[in-house]
Amino acid sequence: MKPPITLYLDHDKPAIVILDQTLLPQKIEYISLTDAHQVWAAIKELKVRGAPAIGVTAAMGLYVEMKHTTTVITTADSFATKFNAVKTYLSTARPTAVNLDWGLTQMANCFEDNKHKSVPEIINALGIAADNLAKNDTDICRRIGISGAALLRENMGVLTHCNAGALAATAYGTALAPIYLAQEQGINLRVYANETRPVLQGARLTAFELCHAGIDTTLICDNMAATVMSKGLIDIVLVGCDRVAANGDTANKVGTHGVAVLAKHFGIPFYVCAPFSTIDFATAIGNDIIIEERESSEITTLWYKQPMAPKEVKAFNPSFDVTPANLITGFITENGILQPPFIT
Amino acid sequence: MKPPITLYLDHDKPAIVILDQTLLPQKIEYISLTDAHQVWAAIKELKVRGAPAIGVTAAMGLYVEMKHTTTVITTADSFATKFNAVKTYLSTARPTAVNLDWGLTQMANCFEDNKHKSVPEIINALGIAADNLAKNDTDICRRIGISGAALLRENMGVLTHCNAGALAATAYGTALAPIYLAQEQGINLRVYANETRPVLQGARLTAFELCHAGIDTTLICDNMAATVMSKGLIDIVLVGCDRVAANGDTANKVGTHGVAVLAKHFGIPFYVCAPFSTIDFATAIGNDIIIEERESSEITTLWYKQPMAPKEVKAFNPSFDVTPANLITGFITENGILQPPFIT
Repeated sequence: MKPPITLYLDHDKPAIVILDQTLLPQKIEYISLTDAHQVWAAIKELKVRGAPAIGVTAAMGLYVEMKHTTTVITTADSFATKFNAVKTYLSTARPTAVNLDWGLTQMANCFEDNKHKSVPEIINALGIAADNLAKNDTDICRRIGISGAALLRENMGVLTHCNAGALAATAYGTALAPIYLAQEQGINLRVYANETRPVLQGARLTAFELCHAGIDTTLICDNMAATVMSKGLIDIVLVGCDRVAANGDTANKVGTHGVAVLAKHFGIPFYVCAPFSTIDFATAIGNDIIIEERESSEITTLWYKQPMAPKEVKAFNPSFDVTPANLITGFITENGILQPPFIT
Repeated sequence: MKPPITLYLDHDKPAIVILDQTLLPQKIEYISLTDAHQVWAAIKELKVRGAPAIGVTAAMGLYVEMKHTTTVITTADSFATKFNAVKTYLSTARPTAVNLDWGLTQMANCFEDNKHKSVPEIINALGIAADNLAKNDTDICRRIGISGAALLRENMGVLTHCNAGALAATAYGTALAPIYLAQEQGINLRVYANETRPVLQGARLTAFELCHAGIDTTLICDNMAATVMSKGLIDIVLVGCDRVAANGDTANKVGTHGVAVLAKHFGIPFYVCAPFSTIDFATAIGNDIIIEERESSEITTLWYKQPMAPKEVKAFNPSFDVTPANLITGFITENGILQPPFIT
């Protein structure tokens, strides 16, 4: 039993085929994204989400858009102008995820290496680069899983927040990768998933993919984390992240900071699982990270768009928070378990 | 501007008229409860909720049921048998709220004082007792408000969890009483309301009644409490409670414990607001408090009964948690601000 496939590149159309995560868990439906606008909207609307998946999707989106335009663009200069415009456009879909820029930069590097070639050759190189990004992501996630599984023992209770699982990457995910690798090693775990308001990624995605993979999973409301910790049910906390500052301050889905404070209070180790590329050396400390604030209606209306608060109430809806480095036990990466500060 | 009326006793029918809180904030609808089964169901289904309101409703329910039965019961012995049966039945509607038993015990004391009288005289005395419980509750809540308002200053940020407001009592409430009294004194506050999953009392009730009363209110998801605290937006936390053990350990809506840990971490005073009757001297410590566990479907389906988690996932749904006394700055009561342990 495994989680479903998150996304792949269909070279023939060309198109990115993604599992529409806004329809989960009721409906498993794959949709094709064939231009940059569809890719931008899919990222913005959370049809595809999770830092690694966003990076790969943006890179694939840049390739798909450029491949379609080669019917009208044939000169290298026009190609470069269009390429840069699409790259800039796609980078605006989500402001917090460093992987979005990272994926696009990988494609820009590939373009730079091949710009002296013909347009069909450049396109071919970009297609290979996009595929390789996906393969590398799967490899990195698997290695994060191996690093983290070393911390896990039979019957341990693992708490996770949001979805940093297979659905957030090309496979395995980050925070859930150690759980999947432990499963491969025959280690049985008890996983507690915070539902993760307002968009309920924990309920809809983490619970879905863990159950799909046959892992013992209990869903709790975010405010019950202290309860399960105080009852001794949790031995370790594993979360993903969207951006890590050089000092180790970590931006992740809102609620992570609170879970870290609780873990410290109850003496439970708290680990951030992330590809090394998530560390942003250009950002010194967490206060420098810009936090996306989303629509109030995500809080004041339920998923099915029914009002659930008085219409005159204000709502504060930050999408992420920053967990100070001193609350983080370690960073589980593809290069092992690391401690900040991070120096290039 | 004031919050709406929560409940009152209509002696003519007789009936308890309650605002059906499961329909808020979309619909303000009052319903009549004319027998013990309707009262039991209304308490169980959270149509009326909040420790003080439950106590008063149960007491009124006992009176209403007994008044209706006087057409068939005319002897003191039969009356006593029925009275005790109804009292026991009503006490089972919610296991955690000490006020439920407290309200019923007040009625039993009244019955004991009047049992030598005729059945019509007993009924009359019970009706007066039920009304007095409601009046006393309003008086106590107002005095809690006066005690707590002394801690509040212009432009302070107040965080509250769940609904311990006017809708949880006959008026003013407990945690929100200091806010209403501050408003009467011309003090403007910024109130942050945790939405309080799974039943969303913060979004549906606290935000509703505070907005109705014209108070500056911002709704947040429970997992954003650490965010607003870390930004310096919160100066004080005010919560209600369902039961306080003699050592000060406090059972309240699940999530309270976590907010208390966060408040301690960020150096923010954390106060429990409660009538003195909420202190249960028969319960030594928090571990002795039985915590109600409710249906998983409250977590796995949304308010409008749409599935939002995979059907195979387990869910843990404790209704309350216990906040250790060492995380509580003080208890705001009608007798002033108190510190545990509590000794009779």
